[in-house]
Amino acid sequence: MPDNLIAPHIQTSFDRQSMMATFGATLVAAADGRAVIRAPLMPGVRQQHGAGHAALTFGIGDTAAGYAALSLMPAGREVMTAEIKINLLSPALGDWFEAVGEVVKTGRRLSVVRAEVVAITGATRKTIAILQGTMVPVDPAPE
Amino acid sequence: MPDNLIAPHIQTSFDRQSMMATFGATLVAAADGRAVIRAPLMPGVRQQHGAGHAALTFGIGDTAAGYAALSLMPAGREVMTAEIKINLLSPALGDWFEAVGEVVKTGRRLSVVRAEVVAITGATRKTIAILQGTMVPVDPAPE
Amino acid sequence: MPDNLIAPHIQTSFDRQSMMATFGATLVAAADGRAVIRAPLMPGVRQQHGAGHAALTFGIGDTAAGYAALSLMPAGREVMTAEIKINLLSPALGDWFEAVGEVVKTGRRLSVVRAEVVAITGATRKTIAILQGTMVPVDPAPE
Amino acid sequence: MPDNLIAPHIQTSFDRQSMMATFGATLVAAADGRAVIRAPLMPGVRQQHGAGHAALTFGIGDTAAGYAALSLMPAGREVMTAEIKINLLSPALGDWFEAVGEVVKTGRRLSVVRAEVVAITGATRKTIAILQGTMVPVDPAPE
Repeated sequence: MPDNLIAPHIQTSFDRQSMMATFGATLVAAADGRAVIRAPLMPGVRQQHGAGHAALTFGIGDTAAGYAALSLMPAGREVMTAEIKINLLSPALGDWFEAVGEVVKTGRRLSVVRAEVVAITGATRKTIAILQGTMVPVDPAPE
Repeated sequence: MPDNLIAPHIQTSFDRQSMMATFGATLVAAADGRAVIRAPLMPGVRQQHGAGHAALTFGIGDTAAGYAALSLMPAGREVMTAEIKINLLSPALGDWFEAVGEVVKTGRRLSVVRAEVVAITGATRKTIAILQGTMVPVDPAPE
Repeated sequence: MPDNLIAPHIQTSFDRQSMMATFGATLVAAADGRAVIRAPLMPGVRQQHGAGHAALTFGIGDTAAGYAALSLMPAGREVMTAEIKINLLSPALGDWFEAVGEVVKTGRRLSVVRAEVVAITGATRKTIAILQGTMVPVDPAPE
Repeated sequence: MPDNLIAPHIQTSFDRQSMMATFGATLVAAADGRAVIRAPLMPGVRQQHGAGHAALTFGIGDTAAGYAALSLMPAGREVMTAEIKINLLSPALGDWFEAVGEVVKTGRRLSVVRAEVVAITGATRKTIAILQGTMVPVDPAPE
């Protein structure tokens, strides 16, 4: 399946996340328990030394993990992050970042997920963070 | 000590974090192993249903925990997040959010921290997330 | 409420955990969203330098958190740990250890919990670990 | 490299962990940033329904992750767990359990590790837990 095959309800959900627009993030793939999000290192997303803020690394990693979980559910469902943990391996320095989320176990009540965030500079790729967490399916209407 | 007593090097560090400006966040306190950050629910920080994105909740919680750790170190030091975990208790709905970070144990090589994020709507306060993590002191120059 | 007020179904559940017997652990309290477990530093629970193994610290912390969650549920329910994180602050050295679990938020589908493990030597108490995690209610019969 | 190639100082360290003997655990491999531990489902390591207790799953996962980290360090070093998180995917039911620890990033001050615990029943293998954490190198003498 090509990277750009994304179910319409997933793309719509992503497009409604204003934080992703603020981060300049793009949903590159979301199918079969795997999702990919890319974001550049923009001026407004930095920590005190100019690297990407942990909120950026976390945000795209968590969101990729969430859409990975959603990609295994019937259309009309939603997921929310119950909890997630991030280990930051290196400063978020690079031209842009790629978060890859994947489902470890999908369940009726909980999905266990992982994500990895890579910094990309020219042709080099460096893993800067790994995440492990839990998504819960929810009914779409209320929050 | 009044809430607004913040050491100059901590305020400077915070002011250099463009992500905090993007979030409209303010450093309210940072002393004696405790730090407080406030941020409103702005249009550009939301998830697909209009609540604050987990990246906002995480971002202010993590940053409050970091400055709590830094407040116990000599001026000239820096800290970085090694790892942190967040449990999201409720959607981030409110007029604004307050993250309170505190140091559980400070050490030469590691500081263990916690944070709590509260949503504030009028006079009501609701805890929406708790965090637990590890900060590492680093030398200021290189990252 | 005195520390020794424990609902019979909770005590029965604890008594059926052979790991708790192997650890020499005692359930001291379990009510109102809080549970306390004590265990000595026995010869068979150590790491390579004679301190208590992380599995002991984790085991009593996780179990205290679980019974804290269970204490808020109707009799006949059970809980399982979905996930939990431990930060180890100091080696587990002491005459015995006390784990205090507490519920941060109880819900129909998830309970968020915390625990703290303290090493006790004579009259001194030292926090050696903190935990934060998620318990899920389950039906009692199948596992 | 065969699974049974384990450096003598690592085997000695493992053999001094009385908790591992209590669990009936064996160190099967520890080299090149990867370690494997196996343990049976013995009578004394269970939760209230007869499955393996989370302290067992955690204990062998954490220990495998620790020896994975140690395997990349010069002889004479030690590691301690700073923090680790476990997601429990399924009850620990099986003839025995295998924990595989691996190093994600090794550093002078911190090593980031992962582990997976599998339940084995006859010829079937089922992942029952994943862990993600941080090990810190320490000097061998003091704790």
